[in-house]
Amino acid sequence: MSFPAKKKQKLSSGEVEEKVDWRKRKAEKKEQKRRWKEAKLIQQLEKQNQAKAEEEKQQQQCQEEEEQKAKGRLYTVSIALPGSVLDNAQSPELRTYLAGQIARACAVFCVDEVVIFDEQGEDTRTVQGEFKGVGKKGQACVQLARILQFLECPQYLRKAFFPKHHDLEFAGVLNPLDSPHHMRIDEEVEFREGIVLDRPCKAAKGSFVNCGMRKEVQIEKQLQPGLRVTVRLHKNQKPESRVRKGVVVAPHVPRTEGGLYWGYSVRLASCLSAVMTECPFKDGYDLTIGTSERGSDADHTSLPPFRHMLVVFGGLKGLEESVAADPNLDVTDPSVLFDLYLNTCSGQGSRTIRTEEAILISLSSLRQKIATSHHVKR
Amino acid sequence: MSFPAKKKQKLSSGEVEEKVDWRKRKAEKKEQKRRWKEAKLIQQLEKQNQAKAEEEKQQQQCQEEEEQKAKGRLYTVSIALPGSVLDNAQSPELRTYLAGQIARACAVFCVDEVVIFDEQGEDTRTVQGEFKGVGKKGQACVQLARILQFLECPQYLRKAFFPKHHDLEFAGVLNPLDSPHHMRIDEEVEFREGIVLDRPCKAAKGSFVNCGMRKEVQIEKQLQPGLRVTVRLHKNQKPESRVRKGVVVAPHVPRTEGGLYWGYSVRLASCLSAVMTECPFKDGYDLTIGTSERGSDADHTSLPPFRHMLVVFGGLKGLEESVAADPNLDVTDPSVLFDLYLNTCSGQGSRTIRTEEAILISLSSLRQKIATSHHVKR
Repeated sequence: MSFPAKKKQKLSSGEVEEKVDWRKRKAEKKEQKRRWKEAKLIQQLEKQNQAKAEEEKQQQQCQEEEEQKAKGRLYTVSIALPGSVLDNAQSPELRTYLAGQIARACAVFCVDEVVIFDEQGEDTRTVQGEFKGVGKKGQACVQLARILQFLECPQYLRKAFFPKHHDLEFAGVLNPLDSPHHMRIDEEVEFREGIVLDRPCKAAKGSFVNCGMRKEVQIEKQLQPGLRVTVRLHKNQKPESRVRKGVVVAPHVPRTEGGLYWGYSVRLASCLSAVMTECPFKDGYDLTIGTSERGSDADHTSLPPFRHMLVVFGGLKGLEESVAADPNLDVTDPSVLFDLYLNTCSGQGSRTIRTEEAILISLSSLRQKIATSHHVKR
Repeated sequence: MSFPAKKKQKLSSGEVEEKVDWRKRKAEKKEQKRRWKEAKLIQQLEKQNQAKAEEEKQQQQCQEEEEQKAKGRLYTVSIALPGSVLDNAQSPELRTYLAGQIARACAVFCVDEVVIFDEQGEDTRTVQGEFKGVGKKGQACVQLARILQFLECPQYLRKAFFPKHHDLEFAGVLNPLDSPHHMRIDEEVEFREGIVLDRPCKAAKGSFVNCGMRKEVQIEKQLQPGLRVTVRLHKNQKPESRVRKGVVVAPHVPRTEGGLYWGYSVRLASCLSAVMTECPFKDGYDLTIGTSERGSDADHTSLPPFRHMLVVFGGLKGLEESVAADPNLDVTDPSVLFDLYLNTCSGQGSRTIRTEEAILISLSSLRQKIATSHHVKR
């Protein structure tokens, strides 16, 4: 009786044990399940949070990119004019002053490229070489190009890039461009123009650049001394450090990313047609405008969307003369060369408008149209 | 038998006679009636024709008047700027050239009146008197006024109206206005500017005027020699006659009746407020515009209808300086002085715009708005 009892007891004990174990296991299992569920939930939550964070981050990035894009200016405006306009001036001083007027007009209206074309077969496509003296006539294209380049260059770089030259003999009469890339010495800005200095950094540690600041700027790349560069300065630099740090960027970055006007480039063209055919932009100019009193009224014209606009001005005798002087063109009517042929000053009270006036008048007339047009095509 | 027969005959003859008379009379009456009716009809027709002709004549007159009105320009555009802008030039030649730039801008945009106000308390309100020499500074208002007047005057009258003067020492550098009232000697036109000659006509037969033609012009009025006059030349004059004939008209007639741009008048003002208070138009300027980088964007502004518009430009330091220098004004914000305070060059790529540039830029920006605005109010 004891056996069974014992057994029973045993059994019961075993049973109890078993029962306990089972309960325990069940509870454990439940607990495990709960924990697992919890873990899964936490994991899910984490995943969700992560996804959310990532999404937010992406959104932020997108937004930042959008903002960057909105801040930047992706279109360019080029103008072209014959260098012969300088021969319209009455003295070497006024010749220089006239070139300065053109430079100022370009700066005021944020022109990115100035193309000077030859109407008289001068055929000089470089500003290198010796100039033979400033007279009333002669090498107008090269002189105009040189003065435009001189004025575009920030003052602190001029000594390095513009040695004494006859073309610049009367540079004293020139009014400064005062454009945003002509920085004052203590201005704290993101971008600066500079010249690579001939002073080696330690063990291939890049180059030093003079950016017209009290301190020199150290860049990572090792570049040829004398090169003109656009530098993006690092933010939040220690004021006590001996040098500033920055990276060299493409010259278009201040415009495309910062939306800043960053001066103009100057290009010489041997004739009117070369203005278009030697365009520095990959797909050429996608909107070309000729200006003439005989063009259609600009007031009734809106501009199509564009990336690279070119506005062409004639000289003393209009674009007809420029077309006639071009050996590559067998047309006589200039209007066929352009997408639009516009009169930007209808009802003019003078029989003639000088080219330096026409640039200000036309760009003022086109300015609002440009601002509303380029937003469409990006 | 004979008697009665006679009587009868007589009677019959009388009867016949009577019968004939009656017939005759009837016919005559009929004829008369017809004639009378005809005459009446003719009269009616004539009356009708006359009325028609008169109506036509009236209509034609109306039409001519309308055409005259449509052809004419009834509104005026004035600009005002401080004479101190000349002190912004670097040499006497450039000072003169700068004044010439302003004159050309006015001509190109058909400005009718230029007001030069004093920002520096020069307090010289006449161009009479001796000028004390052209330096970098000094009597800028008077010199600017004199050069503007000199350039506005047709070449053939300059010798008479502008004796040798220090202010005009460098007039050789000035570019001509080439505006429509600067006629060539053989141009056949309705209006011409002239000077009354000191040569008496026979027995109060008017005066002779030099209008820059091969022949002198005889006018009906007897006027003081040396007077500058606007002459309307008679049409269809005999080519063999010794003189041309014409009548003196008000200087505004070529504009209000011919729709021609007829140069500008020049006025000196002792301060900014005097520009408005001394307005030569009876009811003053009915649209005043101040220009400033701090103004509202002109692109989003259309002009209300006007008769006499005034556009005011600041000098080197903007209109704020002009307001500050005016003892009659106790405001500091220039915008309260004008109907509109506009920035005509938003997004400018230079920190500063020179006044001579601002005139071209602003008037180009306002030109289309002016053309569409003035048509409303006549």
